[in-house]
Amino acid sequence: MAADGARPGCLAGVRVLDLSQFEAGPSCTEALAWLGAEVVKIENPKGGEAGRMLLYGAADQNQDSWYFLLFNANKKSVTVNLKSERGRALVKDMAKRADIFVENFAPGAIERLGLGYDTMRGINPGIIYAQLKGFGTGGPYENNLAFDMIAQATGGVMSITGDADGPPIKPGVTLGDTGTGMLLAISILAALYRRRETGEGEHIEIAMQDAMLQYIRVALSSQATQGEAAKRNGAKILSGFAVPSGTYPCKPGGPNDYVYVYTSRTNPAHWQRLLEVIGRADLIGDPRFDTGPARLKHEREVDEMISAWTRRHDKREAMRILGEAGVPAGAVFDTMELTNDADFERRGIMQTMQHPTAGPFKMPGWPVRFGGRPPKLESAPLLGQHTNEVLSEWLGFDEDTIKQLGNDKII
Amino acid sequence: MAADGARPGCLAGVRVLDLSQFEAGPSCTEALAWLGAEVVKIENPKGGEAGRMLLYGAADQNQDSWYFLLFNANKKSVTVNLKSERGRALVKDMAKRADIFVENFAPGAIERLGLGYDTMRGINPGIIYAQLKGFGTGGPYENNLAFDMIAQATGGVMSITGDADGPPIKPGVTLGDTGTGMLLAISILAALYRRRETGEGEHIEIAMQDAMLQYIRVALSSQATQGEAAKRNGAKILSGFAVPSGTYPCKPGGPNDYVYVYTSRTNPAHWQRLLEVIGRADLIGDPRFDTGPARLKHEREVDEMISAWTRRHDKREAMRILGEAGVPAGAVFDTMELTNDADFERRGIMQTMQHPTAGPFKMPGWPVRFGGRPPKLESAPLLGQHTNEVLSEWLGFDEDTIKQLGNDKII
Repeated sequence: MAADGARPGCLAGVRVLDLSQFEAGPSCTEALAWLGAEVVKIENPKGGEAGRMLLYGAADQNQDSWYFLLFNANKKSVTVNLKSERGRALVKDMAKRADIFVENFAPGAIERLGLGYDTMRGINPGIIYAQLKGFGTGGPYENNLAFDMIAQATGGVMSITGDADGPPIKPGVTLGDTGTGMLLAISILAALYRRRETGEGEHIEIAMQDAMLQYIRVALSSQATQGEAAKRNGAKILSGFAVPSGTYPCKPGGPNDYVYVYTSRTNPAHWQRLLEVIGRADLIGDPRFDTGPARLKHEREVDEMISAWTRRHDKREAMRILGEAGVPAGAVFDTMELTNDADFERRGIMQTMQHPTAGPFKMPGWPVRFGGRPPKLESAPLLGQHTNEVLSEWLGFDEDTIKQLGNDKII
Repeated sequence: MAADGARPGCLAGVRVLDLSQFEAGPSCTEALAWLGAEVVKIENPKGGEAGRMLLYGAADQNQDSWYFLLFNANKKSVTVNLKSERGRALVKDMAKRADIFVENFAPGAIERLGLGYDTMRGINPGIIYAQLKGFGTGGPYENNLAFDMIAQATGGVMSITGDADGPPIKPGVTLGDTGTGMLLAISILAALYRRRETGEGEHIEIAMQDAMLQYIRVALSSQATQGEAAKRNGAKILSGFAVPSGTYPCKPGGPNDYVYVYTSRTNPAHWQRLLEVIGRADLIGDPRFDTGPARLKHEREVDEMISAWTRRHDKREAMRILGEAGVPAGAVFDTMELTNDADFERRGIMQTMQHPTAGPFKMPGWPVRFGGRPPKLESAPLLGQHTNEVLSEWLGFDEDTIKQLGNDKII
């Protein structure tokens, strides 16, 4: 079942000119890379993409960050000095040979570089030119700076996350970045599909705030029914209608020793099976608990009887027993438990990146299996690792030309 | 800027046979529908897909739920009785004419219906057959039931969401469902792209637990640096390194009257601009606050000085002032504020579904603009609304044949 890369990727032959940085853009182009596209990062010769040094850097600050490795697997790196006229001309030449162009600079920056859509379309009418913004062009915040958390705040995500009586909080996931990048990848691939027939290029734009609406739709349905803004509800189902739902404490009581238990109102068997598991079969058919609305009235009692059982088990055991009984349940796994999970490795969901300087690094690849196997994880590139290769293959430059560009500090 | 549907969708001519229900599958096929594919839902003649009645139903329980409308825009509906041999034969006939097949039944169900991949590949070798599971096939939980929250528990999302000293909680977003659906849509489109050249079909499988790893990667990078599982950190940045980050209280003190404020450590100007905005320019250059590590040591003081300013402003005003000054900031908007936002409507990010029985319903469409316009939102289908049309167009059935199928309770 392990990934062996025996089949060429679905996007073999597709060329992506990637001027993006940090996460929203790179998560999008990395998905394309995992699926076989040739993704070429255009990076500043001085230090490269900002994400290489960002945030959760390695102890050795001269090494590319784990963050960079996670979001730039399977890509190539070419250094180009965009501050020079010749560097920008080089990017335009590459755009002639590219299928897709992706950027997520601050608002207006790519146009100031003379690499805006109107220019690029003139150079390559078939190019799929994709821009990732914080806020939508033409809207009141179009010039504002945005990061993942700003998108999650302004896109509704935080308003529905947190305890019922507490302040809004940020989900630990970077939905503003990767959540947006995924929607952009879908859009690019749809445009690419059409282009194969029509030759037509496309100008695609996504804003992080707008993208968040895609993920808060169950809250919008709750709002439509209840006539007011959706509320936070801790670990429980947003609407509050489904009882039980939530994280229940397990042995030995560590910060993530919990099991999630849920019973669907559309399948009454879940509740009955749960009662059997927790040793309360005596309550099967009891009108205080037998329907969703009844359990809602006795939520505290329901939670107490479940907790009384979960506290006697560790979370894996609780998940196993409940799962085997046909009750929807899941242990709360932390990042270390997931990283060390042998099953993820065996199924190829976690793979080990062999990075030339950071060494082996176990990380998730593209979590989708094609014919039983996920795509193979390849290393993230060192800065400029593929400059010669790509300039030679894409533009036919010979060694001397490339050397001269280096001497002139263009690459 | 409004959506006018003037250009045919990118996926015009692509046929999707959609046997999915609830959210994970439907969110995937809806993305394809928004981008122009002909998505045909195959539904039980008795009541249809379970999502029609699910969860946050309308007051009138005979009406399709808002939930259904949100996840099934732009699709068609055909009723087929899968419990009958002739019904299943009908689906196989349709599969001959389809490009894509999507299902997310409970583990093993589609195979028991005789509509598994091996059968379908025999009928149509070019079919892209996509399955959505709770847990990966071949793994220890492959037969367990899964819902959105189970995926978020077992995929690491909850372990990094919540207050630092509180239990794990569930983000309000349905990442286990829609977050998985988006990765599946990317994978399907990549396979579709290759197929156009090679004619090769594909068997694609995604598991909700596996998919969550795509969204927790910043936590994995934090773990790689710190050598321990990533921790919850309320509204603040997960690693805890970036100060300030978080939601700060605004006037008039309602549950979502907060503004998110963040200053990047890679751009010291953010902090200096923030000090100017909050009237503390006297602290510019002060070594207690001038670097990320310094602010980390004085986090409480930093939070207090920012709150002292934010409390004097409402969240929109705070966002405007900070944004104009070049400080990353965003008001926490609730679902009602977003729904009523005129700008979303003007830019076509929110559109109004004209549903034949539920009436007009304002909701988000596909939040990506193509040539400046998002795709046009069309109605979710009534149960069986397109049975005649599709059986006629796909299979060439005449009126009498269709009538007979109805009389025989096959459709």
